[in-house]
Amino acid sequence: MTTRLIRAIGELTTNDPSIGDGTALGRLRDAAMVVDESRVLWVGPNLHAPEADEVLDVAGAAVTPGFVDSHTHLVFAGERSDEFEARMAGTPYDGGGIVRTVSATRAASRAELTTASHARAAALRRSGVTTMEVKSGYELTVEGEARLLEVAASITSEVTYLGAHVVAPEFAHDRDGYVELVAGAMLERCAPLAKWADVFCDRGAFSVDEARVILQSARSAGLDLRLHGQQLGATGGVALAVELGAASVDHCTYVTDDDLEALAGSATVATLLPGAEFATRSPYPSGRRFLDAGVRIAIATDCNPGSSYLTSMPLAMALAVREMGLSVDEALYGATRGGAAALRRPDIGHLGVGARADFLVLDAPRAAHLVYRLGDAVVSYVASATDPDA
Amino acid sequence: MTTRLIRAIGELTTNDPSIGDGTALGRLRDAAMVVDESRVLWVGPNLHAPEADEVLDVAGAAVTPGFVDSHTHLVFAGERSDEFEARMAGTPYDGGGIVRTVSATRAASRAELTTASHARAAALRRSGVTTMEVKSGYELTVEGEARLLEVAASITSEVTYLGAHVVAPEFAHDRDGYVELVAGAMLERCAPLAKWADVFCDRGAFSVDEARVILQSARSAGLDLRLHGQQLGATGGVALAVELGAASVDHCTYVTDDDLEALAGSATVATLLPGAEFATRSPYPSGRRFLDAGVRIAIATDCNPGSSYLTSMPLAMALAVREMGLSVDEALYGATRGGAAALRRPDIGHLGVGARADFLVLDAPRAAHLVYRLGDAVVSYVASATDPDA
Repeated sequence: MTTRLIRAIGELTTNDPSIGDGTALGRLRDAAMVVDESRVLWVGPNLHAPEADEVLDVAGAAVTPGFVDSHTHLVFAGERSDEFEARMAGTPYDGGGIVRTVSATRAASRAELTTASHARAAALRRSGVTTMEVKSGYELTVEGEARLLEVAASITSEVTYLGAHVVAPEFAHDRDGYVELVAGAMLERCAPLAKWADVFCDRGAFSVDEARVILQSARSAGLDLRLHGQQLGATGGVALAVELGAASVDHCTYVTDDDLEALAGSATVATLLPGAEFATRSPYPSGRRFLDAGVRIAIATDCNPGSSYLTSMPLAMALAVREMGLSVDEALYGATRGGAAALRRPDIGHLGVGARADFLVLDAPRAAHLVYRLGDAVVSYVASATDPDA
Repeated sequence: MTTRLIRAIGELTTNDPSIGDGTALGRLRDAAMVVDESRVLWVGPNLHAPEADEVLDVAGAAVTPGFVDSHTHLVFAGERSDEFEARMAGTPYDGGGIVRTVSATRAASRAELTTASHARAAALRRSGVTTMEVKSGYELTVEGEARLLEVAASITSEVTYLGAHVVAPEFAHDRDGYVELVAGAMLERCAPLAKWADVFCDRGAFSVDEARVILQSARSAGLDLRLHGQQLGATGGVALAVELGAASVDHCTYVTDDDLEALAGSATVATLLPGAEFATRSPYPSGRRFLDAGVRIAIATDCNPGSSYLTSMPLAMALAVREMGLSVDEALYGATRGGAAALRRPDIGHLGVGARADFLVLDAPRAAHLVYRLGDAVVSYVASATDPDA
């Protein structure tokens, strides 16, 4: 393995509390870091940097962990900008447009889907994402969902089976039949292709009882669990996620104090998706309220064609800061180590010794510029470890 | 001159109401356009496109006029991300940090200032800006302001003298002396280097009476007028701008019904700067209210190190849509023809025959994607006319 010294780091955010300033951000000034192709080998003061095979002098720039985007729906065809415009003019979001994307996606070839979703993944990577989760959910047939999972697997290992996105149009008058399919034959076909199972548990999608059946079957089939919950109302998704020990419950636009208490005592992360509130003109939940209650949070893009066509993690952070009341550092932590927790990945989202060598060099002296310079290309270099376990 | 045919345009926004659908946007589907190095020569249906020396087939993409960013402060040194973080945590904005940038800018060499401001201009251009205004205002001395105007002139012909940004620290106990300098010796030195004069007329900066003296002197020295008004309170800047026939009054965060009535009957554009409300955590003014009152609006970035370090016109549009209640088309018009009106430039901001050949090809079938795909690089090609009158 070739070793590489990154030196003259003006501000290094490690997210390892045993390093540096003693905060959760584990911050060091005038720092250096040694990596090989896969792992962080050494972190410390620039003055004490060891030798390495190669040297990258970043001349005072800030370095952070790569972003972990733990919630995306990248694999789809078609576009819904007309719906977006209607919502901006006041039409409320109810998830109803998902079936439009289902039609367009079913009609697309595998090559078209692959090209389009890789382009979206590339945009996320340019924004600094080094690990992303990708869901199915836009075909809603046994072979269609399998096809989407295979395309997702060409992008990432964090692949999520979301047959339970909405009830397939063919089952509009047979909800029970669709739930049975998703928890039965579709799951059987899809489980070997995925790591996670997810359900859109909300008004207009699946009830708590339906979601429970699907997720319990998915767990029996060897999948770990995550959940879309409480985007449209406080309808019980959070309690279900905690009950089932899901890794994450995502959206949480509407939460009760009981929800927060349950989350705080659990291993379930609350993943906030401010792009969805932006693009559906919904009220932003207070991120402060989650943190004050002791809940672990992640921030993700929710990149999808209907409710959040967002491909920039710095912008997700900026909305979390401006609209959800997080500090820049809390948003950065949520977009890195928070996302890693939501994917139960102790090896990413931080730069402690042994972590994956996924890091960002910024065109800035401080990580705060990621939010301060809105819309600027602050991430100047994205380093991803080359071992295949991304 | 070489002629160039842009063909297979899926959606062409001309901003010329005599073309296409008869709206202000002047929209044509399945369109084509012929340009030479400087001007638009022909616009019409793709089927009727004439021949040209060169052909660019955009395969169904949307084409729009280039963005006109009529309000920037690009020429500065230093950074104020710590202030940004403090504001996000609740500290109110009062303009007080400007003097920090003054110190850093005075200490910077001309080469440093040129490099830094050209990098910011390049970021704006990547976002689709084909004409930008650039102000001085961060040295506040006779020779310093002249130096900043010279750097600005290396970027654009829309150069604005803003000696009256705040009272220079040396005159903290002699406001009248500073006003006399700005309207006297500094103006005399700077007027030949600028096209516009501007004053920050607000609480903590310059009063209406002070601004009137400065702007009247500037007009006598041959400069056209613009004004920062009513960012921090409804303190009379709008009425002054109308009284003096300024091309634009910028910010307008706080306006009265009388202000809107005065603007509606005037030749003064109201320039909205949503990046400033975002980054100072201020209430967004309702853009709808301006349009309903018959006021002409522009949208600009206000790119500056204190109150809006925004370098993306699509993001300015997105904030105007989400937070100011504009439709996507109204925001697009404000960011193009609105900005042109704020600079009194009938040759830009539209693609009617004879307009400057400044246009954008989008990686999208509709201009609405500029806002719908938040943070994505929707602008795929920026064409700027090559004659020097940018």
